[in-house]
Amino acid sequence: MNFASDNIVGGSAPVLQAILDANAGTMTAYGNDEISKRVRARFDEIFEREVSVFFVATGTAANALALSAAVPPYGLCVCHREAHIIDDECGAPEFFMHGAKLAGLPGIGAKLKPEDIDAYLRSLPKAVKQMPPKALSISQVSECGMVYGLDEIESFGQVCREHGMAFHMDGARFVNALVSLGCSPAEMTWKRGVDILSFGATKNGGLMAEAIVVFRPDLAESLGYRSKRAGQIISKGRLIAAQFEGYFGNDHWLDNARHANRMAQTLSEGLVRLPGVRLAWPREANEVFPIIPKTLDGALKAAGIHYNPWTELSLPETERVADHEILIRLVTSWATREDDVQRLLQAASSGASREAAE
Amino acid sequence: MNFASDNIVGGSAPVLQAILDANAGTMTAYGNDEISKRVRARFDEIFEREVSVFFVATGTAANALALSAAVPPYGLCVCHREAHIIDDECGAPEFFMHGAKLAGLPGIGAKLKPEDIDAYLRSLPKAVKQMPPKALSISQVSECGMVYGLDEIESFGQVCREHGMAFHMDGARFVNALVSLGCSPAEMTWKRGVDILSFGATKNGGLMAEAIVVFRPDLAESLGYRSKRAGQIISKGRLIAAQFEGYFGNDHWLDNARHANRMAQTLSEGLVRLPGVRLAWPREANEVFPIIPKTLDGALKAAGIHYNPWTELSLPETERVADHEILIRLVTSWATREDDVQRLLQAASSGASREAAE
Amino acid sequence: MNFASDNIVGGSAPVLQAILDANAGTMTAYGNDEISKRVRARFDEIFEREVSVFFVATGTAANALALSAAVPPYGLCVCHREAHIIDDECGAPEFFMHGAKLAGLPGIGAKLKPEDIDAYLRSLPKAVKQMPPKALSISQVSECGMVYGLDEIESFGQVCREHGMAFHMDGARFVNALVSLGCSPAEMTWKRGVDILSFGATKNGGLMAEAIVVFRPDLAESLGYRSKRAGQIISKGRLIAAQFEGYFGNDHWLDNARHANRMAQTLSEGLVRLPGVRLAWPREANEVFPIIPKTLDGALKAAGIHYNPWTELSLPETERVADHEILIRLVTSWATREDDVQRLLQAASSGASREAAE
Amino acid sequence: MNFASDNIVGGSAPVLQAILDANAGTMTAYGNDEISKRVRARFDEIFEREVSVFFVATGTAANALALSAAVPPYGLCVCHREAHIIDDECGAPEFFMHGAKLAGLPGIGAKLKPEDIDAYLRSLPKAVKQMPPKALSISQVSECGMVYGLDEIESFGQVCREHGMAFHMDGARFVNALVSLGCSPAEMTWKRGVDILSFGATKNGGLMAEAIVVFRPDLAESLGYRSKRAGQIISKGRLIAAQFEGYFGNDHWLDNARHANRMAQTLSEGLVRLPGVRLAWPREANEVFPIIPKTLDGALKAAGIHYNPWTELSLPETERVADHEILIRLVTSWATREDDVQRLLQAASSGASREAAE
Repeated sequence: MNFASDNIVGGSAPVLQAILDANAGTMTAYGNDEISKRVRARFDEIFEREVSVFFVATGTAANALALSAAVPPYGLCVCHREAHIIDDECGAPEFFMHGAKLAGLPGIGAKLKPEDIDAYLRSLPKAVKQMPPKALSISQVSECGMVYGLDEIESFGQVCREHGMAFHMDGARFVNALVSLGCSPAEMTWKRGVDILSFGATKNGGLMAEAIVVFRPDLAESLGYRSKRAGQIISKGRLIAAQFEGYFGNDHWLDNARHANRMAQTLSEGLVRLPGVRLAWPREANEVFPIIPKTLDGALKAAGIHYNPWTELSLPETERVADHEILIRLVTSWATREDDVQRLLQAASSGASREAAE
Repeated sequence: MNFASDNIVGGSAPVLQAILDANAGTMTAYGNDEISKRVRARFDEIFEREVSVFFVATGTAANALALSAAVPPYGLCVCHREAHIIDDECGAPEFFMHGAKLAGLPGIGAKLKPEDIDAYLRSLPKAVKQMPPKALSISQVSECGMVYGLDEIESFGQVCREHGMAFHMDGARFVNALVSLGCSPAEMTWKRGVDILSFGATKNGGLMAEAIVVFRPDLAESLGYRSKRAGQIISKGRLIAAQFEGYFGNDHWLDNARHANRMAQTLSEGLVRLPGVRLAWPREANEVFPIIPKTLDGALKAAGIHYNPWTELSLPETERVADHEILIRLVTSWATREDDVQRLLQAASSGASREAAE
Repeated sequence: MNFASDNIVGGSAPVLQAILDANAGTMTAYGNDEISKRVRARFDEIFEREVSVFFVATGTAANALALSAAVPPYGLCVCHREAHIIDDECGAPEFFMHGAKLAGLPGIGAKLKPEDIDAYLRSLPKAVKQMPPKALSISQVSECGMVYGLDEIESFGQVCREHGMAFHMDGARFVNALVSLGCSPAEMTWKRGVDILSFGATKNGGLMAEAIVVFRPDLAESLGYRSKRAGQIISKGRLIAAQFEGYFGNDHWLDNARHANRMAQTLSEGLVRLPGVRLAWPREANEVFPIIPKTLDGALKAAGIHYNPWTELSLPETERVADHEILIRLVTSWATREDDVQRLLQAASSGASREAAE
Repeated sequence: MNFASDNIVGGSAPVLQAILDANAGTMTAYGNDEISKRVRARFDEIFEREVSVFFVATGTAANALALSAAVPPYGLCVCHREAHIIDDECGAPEFFMHGAKLAGLPGIGAKLKPEDIDAYLRSLPKAVKQMPPKALSISQVSECGMVYGLDEIESFGQVCREHGMAFHMDGARFVNALVSLGCSPAEMTWKRGVDILSFGATKNGGLMAEAIVVFRPDLAESLGYRSKRAGQIISKGRLIAAQFEGYFGNDHWLDNARHANRMAQTLSEGLVRLPGVRLAWPREANEVFPIIPKTLDGALKAAGIHYNPWTELSLPETERVADHEILIRLVTSWATREDDVQRLLQAASSGASREAAE
């Protein structure tokens, strides 16, 4: 059983079927095919307005390209200090932004606070030696599995407008947040001030399906060129477009995310009942971050369950991981079976009992 | 009927089947899966030595990343002035090489001559104002459908060694050249001095399958990092690896290329029999570049045949396209049917007869 | 005697004196001192309007920074194929523009023609694979010593406006052109459509005095940051500002240029009287490009006169350099003495006579 | 009186005289003149071995260019989180390194500890998502005026060798540290493992005199090209070279630094005698960082004394600045007069007495 991430499985059945269906016949290359056009129109519907959509191969490219449209080479992009764009992309944002800098701020649960950003921005010297702030990037879901509320997003939007910054959302787990909040895509994005979005589908049923969705037309102007020069406009564009068609059909994307979140909820509820187990941060989407006894960690691994330890960098001030404990991350997905979750909980339960007996 | 390019069709049946077969089960992400490992070993076999392989999403990325490993930001990369890397990638090489420059030299049939390169290199001033030459990039097949012979490749290798340059081959149509020469992949590359290769499969049966193959270990050192920061390491790496597995199985890749070349040969032979039609350059792989009367061009278009005009930049000195003529490019692929070719030739023949009758 | 370039001498007396005068006392660093402010106001007067001025250490930096403000990393900058920015700066423009490309067009005397630029721009494919043209850069004086007329500059301005491009002028020898045309700085620049100017003083009396002068306010916005991050804002800004103060005082800059041009004129007129000597291009500023017999070349060198050979790339179509001839460049400056010119002419005359005698 | 920085005065008399002396006559441009050659040889003597020297216009350029020779675009450079290269150069290092990242570590007095660096490096994940560490940069003198001892430097050298990193020293105040330690330039650099040095002279008597000194020959290979493309090779190279000639003559550079340090010592000793005044960090070179009552701050300003507040980021853990206090920086230089120091101390003393009286 593997709870290491939500990208360790293949594509869902409807996504695969869509690839097969799209394969026949000749189509214009480089994303000018009919399916790509249909899917772009579908994005307009989903976001209840005209948007610009750019298909890319990876979430890394989606984030880095999106930021490059908003931040000039001498600019600053504010984000959480544990953000994926800072820690996990080998400097992709700096590459695509041509040397612009990421300023990482602290925050519990890998969540930023609008007032912290505002204070930080006001503290910057007004001088040419200081790279001027040009964008804010938040991760929805956060790196610690937390979901920003609509009010929070709106406050970020206000901070961005006040300081003349673009507002980017890294939506690698966009839908997991969406169904968690129970709102519409429009409400979670442009209606609250988001200017540009990395819209991930790969973790939620896609095989390789990522898109940049742009709400501020001026940010879209350069992205065709930037995508091309980044080698991100794939030759047979139907491959990505078809996946999105399968993804959006019959609410498949929403169903997948609801399932993943529900599996995480079951997991979370089961774990906290065990002695010595507590959550580092509340479970809000499809990730659970329990602090568990190291003995339990050993028992789970012995049971063949895969997952990763996590950093304590964004723990609440009142929380700490003791020497005999470990903080781990468990990720569920559209492909996680109820059965897997129960087996994990049983293994955990046995481990906990055994420990108590000793 | 569409002879516009070899990227207008989907993937071949074995390639699609391989994607389906690879979809089940959990696998490590980011190209560390079992299939990727198997395929890397397969590349070693195919090239009769240990090679480093990096899977990427596009030929643009393959070329630009490969060059970035060989050329420092202040360096020069010599290529043909009509090369794909100069004309068709929105500056991707310059982006990945961080501002290094492409020096485009002339040459008939979009082929470079070793002696021209040598003369050019010797003419460069020895001064810091002159960006130092660090790589040569040739396209095998060339932009005008021509294939470099093994002796020519060997001469390029010598020029590169003498001038301390890396030798890159853009192999978007690698296999078409390979079966045209009837040699082994090793003979066409590292045994003749090639250091790094863009190995394309998308045009020859893949859906999205490109790789960088590195023969000089020092050039491979940075490519993992460079790929990651370029957003080219896809999350579910099995997608590309599986395609290569299907591609290489049962000589599928060779069969596909042989078919494409044969279709081009039939097309070529049929066309030159028509009055007023001649080839701008000999047909050597899966592309035909006839100079045809504009009347015939009209007839072909009226018959619903798609193709593109081509530039006269690399015509032989003794050749020119008259005012009543046009130079076009016809591309065949693994998916081109004999029937399509015959229908094109019939349409052309009727067009030619009709013209003669008027 | 040295006619190799106009940067082989030190600074003129008024420029040196200004450096000495500015040395005493404490001043705010990084260009925020009083002298810098005064000189900026002086630039406003000289150009008869408000301009933004950025002091830099080299002409290379002036050109590259100016272009970086106008051309995004995916853009194209059109210039002459023999332009200094293409040939002589080790890729500085590509570095500062983050990989944007220079498109070099041909033209006699290293001068571009507006209609050629327009035709080139119209020939570019409208597709994301094509880097979009964002700037035109001309050299006034051109690389072959020629001066663009006001009408020509105005035509370039129109082409730029039509195609949405910024218009840059490389004015390394700005004043030499200015006094040659006998017009005002405003007339030669923004009144004819120039948006941004590299204003060189180093070749005409400065020791190290270069500036970017910006006429389109939006192009100035980023230049403070760009200069700083390029290490071009010197700590003790008074050094450059003071030189400009000395330079502009008492028409010193205009006098210097007039002298240099006059020396070139004398040289030119003397040379063409010699048998076998003709000019490759008309002498219009402070450079002379004669085609001379190789025997004469030998005689001049034997007489200890330093100069450089020049490229034949931009010769008129009807002109060619025979095997027994050589094309050379002779540069005069504010420091060239009448006496030096006469000695060169005498040496040439003797050389020519001797040859005739043999 | 101005204690704001050591770059608010002009050049020293010997430096100015050297500029004047070098002005006459023709010399080869771009740093190939005789003075530049002599000064390069002088650097060899000073460092007791062959070194490569590159003259640049600013300390920003020296740092950024030096790092660009050591760190590839995908690499990491470790430094103090308060380092000048992180905070004060508008992203110059990121620009010159093409997006490579600066990792800022904490440390009291803006000094790094070798063991902290080692621990940080060992904590980095071994994966392509992690930019690999390629250089360490320390500031000698540190941003808080502290001087690394020879043992500390040696330890850094060991850490660098173990982790395959280049070792850069930002020597904006190199000589102030040198005379503080009383050792030779060789001992403070390459004999302790330093690979590349930013050698600043502007703050210590130069008008604009900065150099990169390279001890590891492979790091020097690209720097000529990199300097040229950065617009850092000034046309009349004698300007910088001459300043160094004046600077090194008659131990002028050492005398200047000794004077500046002595002035700081006097200042420091005088200040700590005042009630309510203490040093945030020990005075070790030419900067004093006292924590003073805000009333005293007001008195000093009223007396017309200029200086800047400083950040508390690198205070010792046991130290804090109370609400009624302020942390300030006072900088002395070669041009600071004993008289100025006494007047500052008198003003401070009066301010302190007046406060006590109230």
